[in-house]
Amino acid sequence: MEFAEYLPVWSKLTQAQQEQIAQVVEFRSVRKGTRIHDSSEDCLGLVMVRSGQLRTYILSEDGREITISRLFEYDVSLLSASCVMPDMQFNVMIEAEKDTEFWSIPACLFKNLVDESLVVSTFANSLISGYLSELMWLMEQIMWKSFDKRLADFLLEEMAIEGSSSLKITHEKIAAHMGTAREVVTRMLRYFQSEGMVKLTRGTIEITAPDALEALCGK
Amino acid sequence: MEFAEYLPVWSKLTQAQQEQIAQVVEFRSVRKGTRIHDSSEDCLGLVMVRSGQLRTYILSEDGREITISRLFEYDVSLLSASCVMPDMQFNVMIEAEKDTEFWSIPACLFKNLVDESLVVSTFANSLISGYLSELMWLMEQIMWKSFDKRLADFLLEEMAIEGSSSLKITHEKIAAHMGTAREVVTRMLRYFQSEGMVKLTRGTIEITAPDALEALCGK
Repeated sequence: MEFAEYLPVWSKLTQAQQEQIAQVVEFRSVRKGTRIHDSSEDCLGLVMVRSGQLRTYILSEDGREITISRLFEYDVSLLSASCVMPDMQFNVMIEAEKDTEFWSIPACLFKNLVDESLVVSTFANSLISGYLSELMWLMEQIMWKSFDKRLADFLLEEMAIEGSSSLKITHEKIAAHMGTAREVVTRMLRYFQSEGMVKLTRGTIEITAPDALEALCGK
Repeated sequence: MEFAEYLPVWSKLTQAQQEQIAQVVEFRSVRKGTRIHDSSEDCLGLVMVRSGQLRTYILSEDGREITISRLFEYDVSLLSASCVMPDMQFNVMIEAEKDTEFWSIPACLFKNLVDESLVVSTFANSLISGYLSELMWLMEQIMWKSFDKRLADFLLEEMAIEGSSSLKITHEKIAAHMGTAREVVTRMLRYFQSEGMVKLTRGTIEITAPDALEALCGK
């Protein structure tokens, strides 16, 4: 039961609860680009990431996006179970940003555990508080941080995630992450290029002066 | 113990827990404009509103604000206890928008109850999920809704809260609520006036055509 290692509260559950989970936990392996959770589909449940990278985002009626959070190995997502949580009145989408392996605990079972177990309720509390903190941070960024700083931040984060200064990401994709238009991203990237901070080639952004980007973010 | 009526989980607590709360619960009556919670001060704890109106907001380093939520009679605020919740990594301010009476349960006691009682943990979960939903909604508004629609929404909400179409609120104050600059608010209000939707006089905004504002919001 390898998944047990990916569920932080596992060792604090009763044997009966562990058995309930073990009977229904599902393992899936998906390709980069797969949408694994969609507000309009069935509720996925609690997701535990074994490998790869997932992105949680909200989607406007006319197809605009903004990234809410990203999940890596050992991360757990409760937003994919929001449909069974009565006070979570929102819809999110989750897609694989890389080939990804994950387990899911069905939403209804997870909801029962939250309702009956203080340990699981506390765990859920901690996850939801974490989302709230991320969202407060994101709101502050969007409201009060100029776009050049946000974009510099994003490029540095991508560089850290990819472990490479050569980023294979389209301007369109960056715009979706940041909730803005492609033209806005392209214009700012060209400005960064003119300042010698990046080099743009087809499909690739080469970060040539990470120090300058950091200075721009005030780091 | 009138406050018991204002704490939704009261009847589900043990007698010992009820006594613990009754011993330390504080009642306060504050004037309009009082800041009752400040991230840099001591942690206020769980707030239960008896009468009046409170506003929870975040504040940027250079003094800009945006309203996160508003509390009315019988509302409970957990954000004022965020300082003891380890996964709540953010600061909020709370101020009285009207003369307000409220009780507070000290943060540390509340934290102990959340940690030891499934009932209180579930209650906290529900509150935090509610904030998350509000913040998701607010984020969508800010990202994807044009400012004229947001402002029309705000004026209609104020009209409902005040029970009057004559709003005594400054453009400055509206700007703080909405996280924008005063000039932006003034410009849009003048446009609304030119369209016959509002009438502006010193210190007052008279809503003359609520139907037109509703139509603007798409209601």
